[in-house]
Amino acid sequence: MRRRIKKVFDNVKGRLDAIVLKNSTYPHIDLNFFYVTGFISGIFEESIAVLRPDLSLDIITTPLEEQSARRGREVKISTFKGKREQMELLKEELGRTRTIGIDMAELVSSDYELLKKNINCKFKDVSNAFGRARLVKGSDELELIGKAAKIASKVLGDPVDLIRPGRKENELAAELNYHMQKWGASTAAFETIVAFGPNSAEPHYSPGGRRARRGDLALIDMGANYMRYCSDITRTYVPGKSSSMQKEMFETVLGAREAALKVIREGVNGKDVHMAAQEEIDRTKFKGRFNHGLGHGIGLAIHDSGRLAPTADISLQRGMVFTIEPGIYLPGYGGVRIEDDIIVTKNGYKFLTNAPIMLEI
Amino acid sequence: MRRRIKKVFDNVKGRLDAIVLKNSTYPHIDLNFFYVTGFISGIFEESIAVLRPDLSLDIITTPLEEQSARRGREVKISTFKGKREQMELLKEELGRTRTIGIDMAELVSSDYELLKKNINCKFKDVSNAFGRARLVKGSDELELIGKAAKIASKVLGDPVDLIRPGRKENELAAELNYHMQKWGASTAAFETIVAFGPNSAEPHYSPGGRRARRGDLALIDMGANYMRYCSDITRTYVPGKSSSMQKEMFETVLGAREAALKVIREGVNGKDVHMAAQEEIDRTKFKGRFNHGLGHGIGLAIHDSGRLAPTADISLQRGMVFTIEPGIYLPGYGGVRIEDDIIVTKNGYKFLTNAPIMLEI
Repeated sequence: MRRRIKKVFDNVKGRLDAIVLKNSTYPHIDLNFFYVTGFISGIFEESIAVLRPDLSLDIITTPLEEQSARRGREVKISTFKGKREQMELLKEELGRTRTIGIDMAELVSSDYELLKKNINCKFKDVSNAFGRARLVKGSDELELIGKAAKIASKVLGDPVDLIRPGRKENELAAELNYHMQKWGASTAAFETIVAFGPNSAEPHYSPGGRRARRGDLALIDMGANYMRYCSDITRTYVPGKSSSMQKEMFETVLGAREAALKVIREGVNGKDVHMAAQEEIDRTKFKGRFNHGLGHGIGLAIHDSGRLAPTADISLQRGMVFTIEPGIYLPGYGGVRIEDDIIVTKNGYKFLTNAPIMLEI
Repeated sequence: MRRRIKKVFDNVKGRLDAIVLKNSTYPHIDLNFFYVTGFISGIFEESIAVLRPDLSLDIITTPLEEQSARRGREVKISTFKGKREQMELLKEELGRTRTIGIDMAELVSSDYELLKKNINCKFKDVSNAFGRARLVKGSDELELIGKAAKIASKVLGDPVDLIRPGRKENELAAELNYHMQKWGASTAAFETIVAFGPNSAEPHYSPGGRRARRGDLALIDMGANYMRYCSDITRTYVPGKSSSMQKEMFETVLGAREAALKVIREGVNGKDVHMAAQEEIDRTKFKGRFNHGLGHGIGLAIHDSGRLAPTADISLQRGMVFTIEPGIYLPGYGGVRIEDDIIVTKNGYKFLTNAPIMLEI
């Protein structure tokens, strides 16, 4: 993990004596804590990581997580009981440190106040340095994301028998999760979306009791979490015969996808990739029905740093990983979204997910 | 949800014109956003809720979540694209509001800075008001937690055939999650722990490839998430014959559990409940091997407000919900933990979870 710590410090502008990451209560855990420690086991509530420009890493944690932490290499571990003891340990650890980097994008405000009250230092937000470091994935990270993508793709590998009429959304979601875990996922990367009929028009729908019917749109959006790294894939099907409207939505989404993929490569701006897809949709009768960004970074977070969106200004580099997920949503009727994960390469991109794309099943 | 909003304002000390909750990127979503909105579908990244003492609720969200938000009743919804538009909407919404409550325990520091920069108001931390409001559960919440507890209990209802020798930790975890979802859970409330042999000594172990063996300790810690509400249950078994050491650990944990349950009732201090269990363990050769708090609140969060721990100073009230989870951990050998969820009543407690407790299976 020393290479990752170095990458973070390399992305910091100006002098810094240390970086302090502090987790709060679950789910408010700083994902950068896992980026720099590489810990696989453990939750690490209330734990602190102190990184130094000499690439050392010290962990202040509770007895509850001590054994999980001891699996890490080259890590100094101290444990505390109670907030006061924790702050005493941190003060001691920091000694005469003057300028500290913190991750304001993930540190909760009450913990920031706690640090300011107890630690007599200058604080500097280094969340952008973490964001930049995590944007371009290391080969170890690419391997884990690739594995997560393979697991999710495998589960959607044979869609023909996937959605039998009568099957409930939440039952199918349970089975998809089960298969991801059977193939090696630690957990689902996020709450699996299974949306039938008009429910598919709601991009972040939570699966309920609706049953699959012939001729209805059926959208599945899911991802695997493998050793803390995420994948994210969406397919939209119609069990039985599709209507001309459904075909038109599907073809338009695929057209937008092709348009976006055509422009992706190192050096291109993320905004332009989004616009290529959006313009393709806006030239049709579905103008205005693509109401989210084309893609987001994936990695330790399901929404990792980096966006392909109209408001994103980002020059693509080799080794960045994004979702490509154009969609069309007609409230009350249904939605179509097709999503895959790609790595940016010098001359284009490489797919990480590879499940078949088909409308009728 | 008006009753919940009232409960929050009732717990605020001093004058307040509005409360503003702001979510960041997943997983940094303020659970109080769901407490006051009751939204079941949706992720609501970057969304804002504005609550008023007149119990009105206004939501500022992205087009991505608009349809999920529209399922809510008596809610005013505005949508934005981009940070600038969002802050303009919020400014307009707040008008001449002077004092705003924020939830510093869940608001990330960068969003706090964003609010301070854009909103010309006095800010006041009201995280404790949310904590107090959520400590005593409403009857609607008790029903959901009860349902989550029933689902998890059902899955562990017949442990005899649960752990066949040769079965891998992560395979069993996948099956347990599957069954919880089959019985109605939206998802697992947290990463299910299945720990065999010495792995059971690591309280927050992530399941790996170890296989179950006769005579090994086998610990399962899992919970269901039902309509955003959580349950949490732990059982420890030995497939086949247990050793006298394992029996002694098991009996000591059950003794600690009994001692704690004996003192729980309205008016008792949470600290004393923990101490009753700890003293029971510290009287044995396992002194010092119970290295975490006896219990935590559960509700919307798996670690909800309220603790039964040596450092917690909390007077128990009817309607509070806690886990009771004494444990003994011997690094390198294994651990035993038994955990159930209870509601505090006037004269004692009521179990929410009810799976059989047995060592040998």
